[in-house]
Amino acid sequence: MSEEQRAALTPQEARAYFREGVWQRSTRGFADGYLQCGVVFLRSTDAADFLAFCCKNNSALPFLDALPAGSATPGRFAPDADLRTDVPLYHIYKDGELADEVTDLSRYWRGDMVSFLLGCSITFDAALKANGIPNRQLSETGEPTMFVTGIECVPAGRFEGPLVVSMRPMLPSQTIRAIQVTSRFPHTHGAPIHFGNPAAIGIADISQPDVGRPVRILEDEVPVFWPCIGTIWSVVSRTKPELIITHAPGCMFIADKIGESMSIL
Amino acid sequence: MSEEQRAALTPQEARAYFREGVWQRSTRGFADGYLQCGVVFLRSTDAADFLAFCCKNNSALPFLDALPAGSATPGRFAPDADLRTDVPLYHIYKDGELADEVTDLSRYWRGDMVSFLLGCSITFDAALKANGIPNRQLSETGEPTMFVTGIECVPAGRFEGPLVVSMRPMLPSQTIRAIQVTSRFPHTHGAPIHFGNPAAIGIADISQPDVGRPVRILEDEVPVFWPCIGTIWSVVSRTKPELIITHAPGCMFIADKIGESMSIL
Repeated sequence: MSEEQRAALTPQEARAYFREGVWQRSTRGFADGYLQCGVVFLRSTDAADFLAFCCKNNSALPFLDALPAGSATPGRFAPDADLRTDVPLYHIYKDGELADEVTDLSRYWRGDMVSFLLGCSITFDAALKANGIPNRQLSETGEPTMFVTGIECVPAGRFEGPLVVSMRPMLPSQTIRAIQVTSRFPHTHGAPIHFGNPAAIGIADISQPDVGRPVRILEDEVPVFWPCIGTIWSVVSRTKPELIITHAPGCMFIADKIGESMSIL
Repeated sequence: MSEEQRAALTPQEARAYFREGVWQRSTRGFADGYLQCGVVFLRSTDAADFLAFCCKNNSALPFLDALPAGSATPGRFAPDADLRTDVPLYHIYKDGELADEVTDLSRYWRGDMVSFLLGCSITFDAALKANGIPNRQLSETGEPTMFVTGIECVPAGRFEGPLVVSMRPMLPSQTIRAIQVTSRFPHTHGAPIHFGNPAAIGIADISQPDVGRPVRILEDEVPVFWPCIGTIWSVVSRTKPELIITHAPGCMFIADKIGESMSIL
């Protein structure tokens, strides 16, 4: 499928394609302009604490929905979807370690599981593109670029860990525009938290992301850092829950909502 | 008068104070939260070209009002004010050179003069202060910090010249917030156009402003650059109009409008 064909898919078509299990990579560039979401599946006994953690760290883990225990149908966001099959790749974590990766999580599914939908910054790719801002993760690697920072999230119950950020390189003038544009999207991380010197937020080496792959930072460009849903993995690693399932990095759930409809302005 | 007393003045009280002619310095810190404006007085034969120049370079010279030829009463912005006396200090330019500075421009006044009011970034000082963003021009020097850039304005008629920017130093996180805050104020310059490397916009030495005085840039801070009404002086210097009168740098006209009322959001 060409880049243009991927972009032109409807969310329904994209989910049907991912359900086949062949595409196991980033959903960036698919169904251009639609809301993309992270998915997190937890035992119901952990759900209240996790919800509190999302609320306290909303820029990193922007809460969109939590389904009733046992349900995998995100009615408000995609009524005909099944969260257990419609994401390209899932990561299964046991006791804080990656235990498996699957394209269909049915065999790990439990009747007491609660599914969370969280807003993903891929959602504002279309708005950034419309403003001429580079999307090097799309054009160069097809993978995310994430860093664990030295900034601690606000803990809630058993959940704690350092903030993880995504990074996009751009010129200062583009950064100013990107701050304006992404401020409109608080439900998918909103404005960046930092630009420039990586060490100021505890990133030792900008060429070595903790998750995904590096992208080029051209002359005169600065790295710009957004709070990232990847925070979930730093939390899993720190707190080692017995069982937690997430989308694999960059492999999001594409909802039926148009991304712009999530904008506050 | 203490800093607190200056801030607490009403616009009417501040203008009456400036009318006495004793205070001949920056109006920053006076009548906190009110709209501050640049003033430009031109021969009526130049007014149409100058208006076009403002419109084409609106972020640098945000048009607020132009009065009928011969009028110095800015009815929409301060009905009881007189633009010829209510600014602390005026600069008289003849053939592109500073010929005089006066606290009352009555003896240069002509019946065919058109007065322009332009939005000044001091207006959003209050909004930046409310967000904890440093105002080093207020706390350190009491003067503006302006640089001539390598960016050419869009010419209109006889008017042309390089963009002049004001500079405020702050942390990256404060820069992000300042971009959000000042984007709400397009009538007083709006968002910055650049941050970081001064050379990228043609500024050779950040410690040597072309107008006003330097301020400290602390560790981890970046210089942030806004389009500035000071552009008027680069235009005067380039185009050498026979007669043009402006406020002196930092010596603004304080209007009766609350600054927040100029915000678009």
